[in-house]
Amino acid sequence: MTTAALPFPPPAELLEQLRRARRVLCISHVNPDGDAYGSLLAMVWILRALGKEATPAMDAVTTGEFAFLPGIAEVIAPAAVAPVYDLVVCLDASSPDRMGAAWRAEIQATPLAVIDHHRTNTLFGAVNWVESACAATCQMLLYLAQALDVPVAGPLATCLLTGLVTDTLGFRTSNTSAEVLEAAMVLQRSGVSVAEIAGQTVGRMPLTTLRLWGRVLQSVEFAEGVLWATVRLADLAAVGAGADEAKISSILATVAEAEMSAVFTEKLGESGQPQVECSFRAKPGFNVADLAFSFGGGGHAPAAGCTVDGTLTEMIPLIVGRLQEERRRQSGRIQA
Amino acid sequence: MTTAALPFPPPAELLEQLRRARRVLCISHVNPDGDAYGSLLAMVWILRALGKEATPAMDAVTTGEFAFLPGIAEVIAPAAVAPVYDLVVCLDASSPDRMGAAWRAEIQATPLAVIDHHRTNTLFGAVNWVESACAATCQMLLYLAQALDVPVAGPLATCLLTGLVTDTLGFRTSNTSAEVLEAAMVLQRSGVSVAEIAGQTVGRMPLTTLRLWGRVLQSVEFAEGVLWATVRLADLAAVGAGADEAKISSILATVAEAEMSAVFTEKLGESGQPQVECSFRAKPGFNVADLAFSFGGGGHAPAAGCTVDGTLTEMIPLIVGRLQEERRRQSGRIQA
Repeated sequence: MTTAALPFPPPAELLEQLRRARRVLCISHVNPDGDAYGSLLAMVWILRALGKEATPAMDAVTTGEFAFLPGIAEVIAPAAVAPVYDLVVCLDASSPDRMGAAWRAEIQATPLAVIDHHRTNTLFGAVNWVESACAATCQMLLYLAQALDVPVAGPLATCLLTGLVTDTLGFRTSNTSAEVLEAAMVLQRSGVSVAEIAGQTVGRMPLTTLRLWGRVLQSVEFAEGVLWATVRLADLAAVGAGADEAKISSILATVAEAEMSAVFTEKLGESGQPQVECSFRAKPGFNVADLAFSFGGGGHAPAAGCTVDGTLTEMIPLIVGRLQEERRRQSGRIQA
Repeated sequence: MTTAALPFPPPAELLEQLRRARRVLCISHVNPDGDAYGSLLAMVWILRALGKEATPAMDAVTTGEFAFLPGIAEVIAPAAVAPVYDLVVCLDASSPDRMGAAWRAEIQATPLAVIDHHRTNTLFGAVNWVESACAATCQMLLYLAQALDVPVAGPLATCLLTGLVTDTLGFRTSNTSAEVLEAAMVLQRSGVSVAEIAGQTVGRMPLTTLRLWGRVLQSVEFAEGVLWATVRLADLAAVGAGADEAKISSILATVAEAEMSAVFTEKLGESGQPQVECSFRAKPGFNVADLAFSFGGGGHAPAAGCTVDGTLTEMIPLIVGRLQEERRRQSGRIQA
């Protein structure tokens, strides 16, 4: 396909680099989400369709809820990353540290191509393709496949749709553009199902999570447009839930009265010190990314997060105060 | 537009009837959802774009969460329905009784056009356009607007997108086809926002609902692939929530372990007798519509409901038993 027809055409230099490569290592980010796994594996399927040798790598190999993704069993751990590649492609990571241990010293001299949709991307590759108007790195990879004349179907389509559905929280984030819906339509027409992928990801949780909600939603507090809930280690233990099962952010974000919301999850750091994992959400017109960033975290305007040292008792009043302050400031700006 | 280009072209007879009409009464169904309101008002906007006089009517005038829909303030109550129309258009209702009191004796001699996407439609109009492969009546009305060369934008687009988003639960039902996504794309391109409409409907709830969840999710039970929860009148009173705020069905439906789920809401009938409102959900491959139908209710394979006379103590074991039986039978059929 001529790239001119694509809503976001990949740069010619990237296409050239990919066409020239023979052995490619693909890496995505730590604490992987659906777009990290989806874009990592989609890149591998694109490269293989072009006849390349392609290997996916990650900081840690933990499939969990994304076990259904075709190719996920092939993801290698950092220890298996050897300096045998002529190209590294970094996906959905806004800076080199986001690759974690997979970005081994041994491969740092290899040419690096960066493909990402985060506006905070530090452009750390030899070639950088960053489209912050795309809702997911997987959206970009659909255009890449089309530009390289790789048929979009089967495993590739499943991976692409997973990133698209998860990063938009099932087409509910404000960056769900007509192009996102068109991409979903193209993928659905290729044989994968939006409803099925949603049912495997954003529309799926273990029973322990539901039981956890029953406990955590008792703790909900609301003041000055900010809604928050607390997930204690004791709550997790009581229902046999893992910390990563606390997806309460999405629910809190739907409350009509709240412009911003936060879920505070109690955890222990590497040396056993108390930590609080913070997950923030904002309604359209509000932004929680700057706040998360100021605490060393990241994300997008409507959904961001950070992990801070401290106890729940210390950190919650502090961070809720900051959220209320941000919300006041941003409300003023909206009304002005 | 030539109707041949549309995925589901409206019948020529319907187009002719609409073009001929001058004063049109539009009616949708009792207990209105987003597609009932959306299709009702979209039809009004289409007719007005054609220069017709068009009036929306409903069994009861209760806007609630759909107050944002353009034109909703014009919906008239049954008492205001007079025999002055030369056409009645019935939207999203599978049988005449679904129109409730709006289907007044005085207008029953007026020619009736039926537009609906329920496969159970009894074809009770002079003209019937029923497309069960469409996910929403609003999806059909997009094609109708296109066939009639009515520009799709502004109020009309908002109404259409609302029906499409709500009836697919935000593109999560199994009938979310490529045509549904294409319709969403067309509407998004016309200036309305999928994310905003989702944020006003499927992605929005009052704080009282969240507090209600905190209580109700304590009652969750799971056995033989069926998950259920109970909403007692005491729960509603404790948090100050209305009965219609118990949208727990969608959450229960996401639990990985459950093939079927049910929410039982305690209520009082017109003469004060105890009743149970049942809301059922089924995973892809399972069907709860037949069960709901056997209890005098209705719906689709993945989402259906009914209201039965009796107390929670009497009805829950009975209905859960029937669900478990259905689930066993349907599992056998899937595996066979």
